[in-house]
Amino acid sequence: LTCGHCNSGGAIFGREVAALAIVPTVPSNGGLPGTDPVLAPPGEECVYLVGNSLGLQPSQTKELVSEELDKWAKWGVNGHFTGDRPWMPIDENVIEQSAAIVGAENTEVAIMNSLTVNLHLLFVSFYRPSGKRNKIMYEASAFGSDYFAFESQARLHGLDPAEVLLPLKARPGEELLRTEDIVEAIQAAGDSLAVTCFGTVQYYTGQYFDVQPITSAAHAVGAHAIWDCAHAVGNIDLKLHLWEVDGACWCNYKYLNAGPGAIGGFFVHKKHHDKGLPVLAGWWGQKQSVRFNMDHKWDPEVDAGAWRLSNPPVLQTVSLLASLEIFARTSMTELRGRSMLLTAYLELLISDLVGKHLSVITPTCPSARGCQLSLKFNEETSCLATFAALEKRGIVVDHRKPNVIRVAPAPLYNSFRDVFKFCTALREGLNEVEKLEVAQPAAKRIKV
Amino acid sequence: LTCGHCNSGGAIFGREVAALAIVPTVPSNGGLPGTDPVLAPPGEECVYLVGNSLGLQPSQTKELVSEELDKWAKWGVNGHFTGDRPWMPIDENVIEQSAAIVGAENTEVAIMNSLTVNLHLLFVSFYRPSGKRNKIMYEASAFGSDYFAFESQARLHGLDPAEVLLPLKARPGEELLRTEDIVEAIQAAGDSLAVTCFGTVQYYTGQYFDVQPITSAAHAVGAHAIWDCAHAVGNIDLKLHLWEVDGACWCNYKYLNAGPGAIGGFFVHKKHHDKGLPVLAGWWGQKQSVRFNMDHKWDPEVDAGAWRLSNPPVLQTVSLLASLEIFARTSMTELRGRSMLLTAYLELLISDLVGKHLSVITPTCPSARGCQLSLKFNEETSCLATFAALEKRGIVVDHRKPNVIRVAPAPLYNSFRDVFKFCTALREGLNEVEKLEVAQPAAKRIKV
Ligand SMILES: Cc1ncc(COP(=O)(O)O)c(C=O)c1O
Ligand SMILES: Cc1ncc(COP(=O)(O)O)c(C=O)c1O
Repeated sequence: LTCGHCNSGGAIFGREVAALAIVPTVPSNGGLPGTDPVLAPPGEECVYLVGNSLGLQPSQTKELVSEELDKWAKWGVNGHFTGDRPWMPIDENVIEQSAAIVGAENTEVAIMNSLTVNLHLLFVSFYRPSGKRNKIMYEASAFGSDYFAFESQARLHGLDPAEVLLPLKARPGEELLRTEDIVEAIQAAGDSLAVTCFGTVQYYTGQYFDVQPITSAAHAVGAHAIWDCAHAVGNIDLKLHLWEVDGACWCNYKYLNAGPGAIGGFFVHKKHHDKGLPVLAGWWGQKQSVRFNMDHKWDPEVDAGAWRLSNPPVLQTVSLLASLEIFARTSMTELRGRSMLLTAYLELLISDLVGKHLSVITPTCPSARGCQLSLKFNEETSCLATFAALEKRGIVVDHRKPNVIRVAPAPLYNSFRDVFKFCTALREGLNEVEKLEVAQPAAKRIKV
Repeated sequence: LTCGHCNSGGAIFGREVAALAIVPTVPSNGGLPGTDPVLAPPGEECVYLVGNSLGLQPSQTKELVSEELDKWAKWGVNGHFTGDRPWMPIDENVIEQSAAIVGAENTEVAIMNSLTVNLHLLFVSFYRPSGKRNKIMYEASAFGSDYFAFESQARLHGLDPAEVLLPLKARPGEELLRTEDIVEAIQAAGDSLAVTCFGTVQYYTGQYFDVQPITSAAHAVGAHAIWDCAHAVGNIDLKLHLWEVDGACWCNYKYLNAGPGAIGGFFVHKKHHDKGLPVLAGWWGQKQSVRFNMDHKWDPEVDAGAWRLSNPPVLQTVSLLASLEIFARTSMTELRGRSMLLTAYLELLISDLVGKHLSVITPTCPSARGCQLSLKFNEETSCLATFAALEKRGIVVDHRKPNVIRVAPAPLYNSFRDVFKFCTALREGLNEVEKLEVAQPAAKRIKV
């Protein structure tokens, strides 16, 4: 197994991760919509391969959330300053481990808000169009929310999105953007480029962009590189500091398992700290020592904390903490090694289906993807029918319009057995769909 | 009891509120810092008068939060679309009652983010300096976070805060801003004024500004009026729609009892909907029908929902819901009536202390204040010593630098008995402090 993209051999397939004592809670088939009790016994655990959308609940979450509710009931407002995890600085409990996961120094991370809010905060600091330098480069198939952020940021500066947005498309007939094409486009944009912003792992294709060369290319033309790490955090082994990424944001509800609508993550590289970059300021961005003075003298923290606006949401913060405590028992390097094996196993088990029923649009090089494989079906109808057949069998994956099923063996909690079960069910599902297709000619299958 | 400010007679003192079946959880003395077990028996409930900082926990909160955690464990990602309160539109559960509390139409409210973030979002839409019209008018003693928002918004537009910020001070020797002075200042600023932003109830003095005349005056000169309702929501009977307020934001952790770092509230008047105002856009601002299309075509909701950015934080949302369900059993009109009585009672019971030990800086007219009275002590040392003496007796109030104690009988849950107990403890505390002062001359009391 040697790869043309990165020249790595089998060594990238790491060891099995150390036994994780605190495992997430896996839903039973019985609770899920669309399951068939014969094919998926109600009392058995489902096969959950959708950590790319919402990760599973750590077994400690309920306890930690309850603890904070109990403090509130017991102490009222005094909880802000009392006990093991006083609320006032409660985010300090989630900084160190978050930083370890994204490869940052502790001072480079803030845990706050939600992803799209944080993306805007980064744009306020790093997108400062002036004169000719006003362009934003991004993937033509960027996640919708990111695109809307780019567009509205352009408008905020009185600029016409049609003029300043630079979407990059894959070459005709290709699904993936090539690093060399991105770098070339950056060079071509030159001093008209203000910011590049890519999804570190592309939500649809699963492509893991080459962060470092793209970031360097942006810097070489005097632009800033912002990365949306929604699908990368807890999935790949990020080195945001080392790669000199200017700013990054992420959500914690996917591979980070902090629950629906979880608190967001935020990174600003050390080199930009305490430099007076424009921010949307709030009292929480001030140094703790002066935060309650109520003076009208802006005296910000000298690190990423300066970007904070409001007092931290307590339940959201401990919900993340419950998950980070599991990650603290391992490392992203270890998890990434395990993940590469898991995904390679998935790839292997479906290799004979490729071409016939579906194609895998995710890169084949393990270094150019995270854990997710995106299966593209030849037809939308067979994609939807296969999705339903998987659902019946207690396999939870997700469908993205029009004809893609995303399968994501989460590095932290999915097993080789999960992958095996998925592949078995996929085979059964495809057979079922095929029979249906033989029985009902295409014209009648519209409403599958 | 007739008042020179508003000409109302006793009629403003409403009836007792209907019995509230679900009452918040009151901390016991034993759990609180600084209590003396002799003066405040550990097993007894404290007197909690600090709902202006963090409201008490509704008895249903834990149950509702648990329910969502259970759904997550049981359904995983399917919780977004399954059950009674699917997560995808979970904020719909808190809109109607929030709107009722602030006097808005349902379409005018979004529940999201945190206060300071929402204040910035309002500024993005309503502060659009152009030419001469670039000034922001606010109280010189505005809450720090609001001031930082004003300043950073000015900077965002490349403007010098020193030139565009217009802080209003009370007249020399006075603590409170007079409505006529504010209106006059607005008229004087004329077409240089872009936005006015005041704290509806001032956090320090407890002054309730005359929202309608100030808003009208702003409109008359072509400016927008934004209101920070942090200390007003759940306290006074807001009529944001009727008063034609342009935009408002609030936090839900004070009188709204949604917990530490609770989700924020946001209001944009109907007249501004669907008018293409600039926003910081995100996918969640799109119409639900197209939100998951991932097209790069901005197709926003036609109401305040257009300002949303991210998928909603589930635990935070139900934590607010638990509280709103209590408010739904009454109305702000009813609560405000009760509150006026409570605060008048407080005022009465301390009237003989005024002048001697302290003054009340909050307006005496019930229509010009919310529930809070701010007690200003003659000296910082006696203020701090009195605060400690109250703490010993299981009275929870808060201290604001240098010499103010804020006492806030929350409209929803405080009783006349709470007020009575506070006043008894205050008297005892002042006696204790007086004895101390006689025993130790001022020079030695620095470290009280
Ligand atoms: C009047 C006022 N404005 C703004 C804030 C800031 O709130 P947040 O930290 O929720 O942004 C507060 C917080 O207490 C406040 O009282
Ligand atoms: C790549 C990417 N960017 C942005 C978002 C938007 O996230 P949020 O709703 O938390 O702002 C998502 C959500 O799934 C995402 O996958």
